[in-house]
Formats: sequence, C-alpha cells, structure tokens
Amino acid sequence: MRIALIGASGTIGSAVAALLAKDHDVVAIGRTSGDYRVDLADPESVKALFQALGTVDAVVSAAGEARFAPFDALTDADFAFCLRSKLMGQVNLVRFGFPYVSDGGSFTLTSGVLAQQPIVGGAAISLVNAGLEGFIRGAALELPRGIRANVVSPPWVAETLQAMGMDPSPGLPAAHVALAYQQSIEGTASGDVIDPRLMTN
Amino acid sequence: MRIALIGASGTIGSAVAALLAKDHDVVAIGRTSGDYRVDLADPESVKALFQALGTVDAVVSAAGEARFAPFDALTDADFAFCLRSKLMGQVNLVRFGFPYVSDGGSFTLTSGVLAQQPIVGGAAISLVNAGLEGFIRGAALELPRGIRANVVSPPWVAETLQAMGMDPSPGLPAAHVALAYQQSIEGTASGDVIDPRLMTN
Repeated sequence: MRIALIGASGTIGSAVAALLAKDHDVVAIGRTSGDYRVDLADPESVKALFQALGTVDAVVSAAGEARFAPFDALTDADFAFCLRSKLMGQVNLVRFGFPYVSDGGSFTLTSGVLAQQPIVGGAAISLVNAGLEGFIRGAALELPRGIRANVVSPPWVAETLQAMGMDPSPGLPAAHVALAYQQSIEGTASGDVIDPRLMTN
Repeated sequence: MRIALIGASGTIGSAVAALLAKDHDVVAIGRTSGDYRVDLADPESVKALFQALGTVDAVVSAAGEARFAPFDALTDADFAFCLRSKLMGQVNLVRFGFPYVSDGGSFTLTSGVLAQQPIVGGAAISLVNAGLEGFIRGAALELPRGIRANVVSPPWVAETLQAMGMDPSPGLPAAHVALAYQQSIEGTASGDVIDPRLMTN
C-alpha cells in the first residue's frame, strides 16, 4: 500500500514509519520535514497536500498539537489553537482527503488516553481527544467505496516520558503503540477507537 | 437553590424548568426569551450574562446548536458553527461562570446520544457531543470550592420526534429526561456523563 503518514518524525510517527515500511510504501509528511509538508492548522494546506500527493491507500495521522495548562489558565486562544490543530486538522484530513483514498482504503487518526482518563491540566486535550473519537464514529458511517476510518488512542509513551525527564516505565514503548496503527490499516475495523495497550503483536 | 437555566424555553429546557421549579428558584435564560438573554456562540455575551446574574448555586445548559448534514455536505462554516455554539458555548459557561457559582455548586451541560451512537448525517454532532463529555471529565477535576460539573447525554426525546412528524414512541418523554438534570444538581457526582435512560423515579 501507499501510505501517507502525517507526523512521521514524531515519537509515535517514527515508530509507525519503521513498522509500516517493512510491508508498505510510506510517504513521510511533516510540518517542517518529510517528503511532503503540511500545516494541519491551515485547511488550505491540508487541501494542497492531497492535490500534491494524489492517490493513496491509507492516510495516517500522528500529528496535531494541543495545549496543556491549568483549567483557569487556559485562554480563548489556547482552546482555539487546540480546535484548529489537533481536532479540526485531523478532521480535515478525512474531509478533504477521502476523494484521494483508493477503494477499501483507510484513515487512522490519533486521539489519546486523556479522552477517557483525565488529568489535572488536560481539560482542553480531553475535549479534543474525545471529540476526535466522536467524529470518527460518525464519519466512518458515511465514507464511500469501502473506505474505513479509526482513531488510535495512545496511552503515555515511554519515550515521551523519558524525554520529559520522567520515569519511562509506566509508559508503553512507541514500537508497541505502532501496532495499533498497523491493525487499523491492515484490519477490517471502522469507526473504532483502538487502544494500543490491548495489542498483543 | 438559585439555578441559572440556559435554554429554558426549549423542549428539554422547559421540562427541566418545570421539574426544578418545585424546589428551587429557576432563572430562565434564552437567546430570545427569558429573564436574562445570552448568545452562547459569543464569548462576550457569556461573560456579560454572569456579570448580570451575580451568584448562582447551579448553572444548567440545555442549549447550543449544531448542524446535521451528510458528511460530504458539511462545510467549514458548519463545523465552525458547531464548535462555536454547542461546544465552546457550553465550555465557556464553565470557564467564565465558575467564579460566580457558590461553594459546592454545580454545572450541568448537555451532549447527546450521538456522542456514542452515531447516525448518518451526525458526524459534526458526534464530534461536539463527545468533545463536551471529554471536557467535563477534565474540567471537573479542577473546579475550586467543591464545585461539580456533569454532562447529561439525552437520547431522542419523544416531543422532538413528534415535532419532526415522526413516531414519538421510541423517544424518552422530556419530563423523564429532566430527571437526569435534577440528579446532577441535587446529587454528588462530578465529571460524569449522565444517561437519562437510566433514571428510574
């Protein structure tokens, strides 16, 4: 398959790229690096990406930003940024991308564990992650030509915790998280929220 | 309790008002009717509402609009409207309203069954409803002074189905839906998604 991977240089994205490259042609896409560039927060940039890419068999996003801050410190601009980037950026990949996806192809977006298991400082992220899951459940019903759509909800990733100077042991290794993306692409599910902690390899 | 009820004239809101008025002082608030007016889609209008209201013991929202349309017919403007009205309008009630809520008071917002049980045409509504549920899970952790926050997720309402010219019998009567709001206000739960179908009484 020809797979467009947005966020290919990130912690999860690079693990997904490494796993998928064994069996597929992975097109690396990022905001500042990769074979193609896209700014998810800009709808015109998302449209231009697909015009440049042409037909693909799968679109995978491990990208989009959101703001972590105490609830009473989250500003109007913080919420607007989260909605524009991680939420609508990924929603727009599906909206603008599906005409470029081959019959029986798929979308795989990324939410996160805070959708269901909140923490202090994560109200805007919980909103965005849960919103993505609701969107995928709805949009998956209406995609044409057998195109599927799922969202992977990663837990804390070991490499991320380590990069933050924290104990990585409660986290899941990125290489294990990547298995959830592979299942979404190569499996038959649609409208699902896939939890990498349940992957057995 | 002094309860601010936004959306007091709607199908659900008027049933909530009738139920709560038995034991509480209900302040009716709407976009075009009520004791006070608010346009949820306008953050400044939400701020002005609380300045005018002063202290309340509970804030209840049965308001906010979202757009129902086939997935490939939902426009950028449709998504922006849904995010601005039903999603951020209700989020902003909590963000701007909590300083006006008395110790141990509560917020009760409204999502809807499409968050978890999607239907064709409902992708933007599923996004908004699920996003509200994620937001409440997160924000409830950080509200000060024992203030609680929940979201009621109503199923299809009998009176709404009837108004749409459909068979009302699969719907839940609005008076039954109202019990979920009462439980959120008078109970002790916080961060919960309350399903009116599970209310007995």
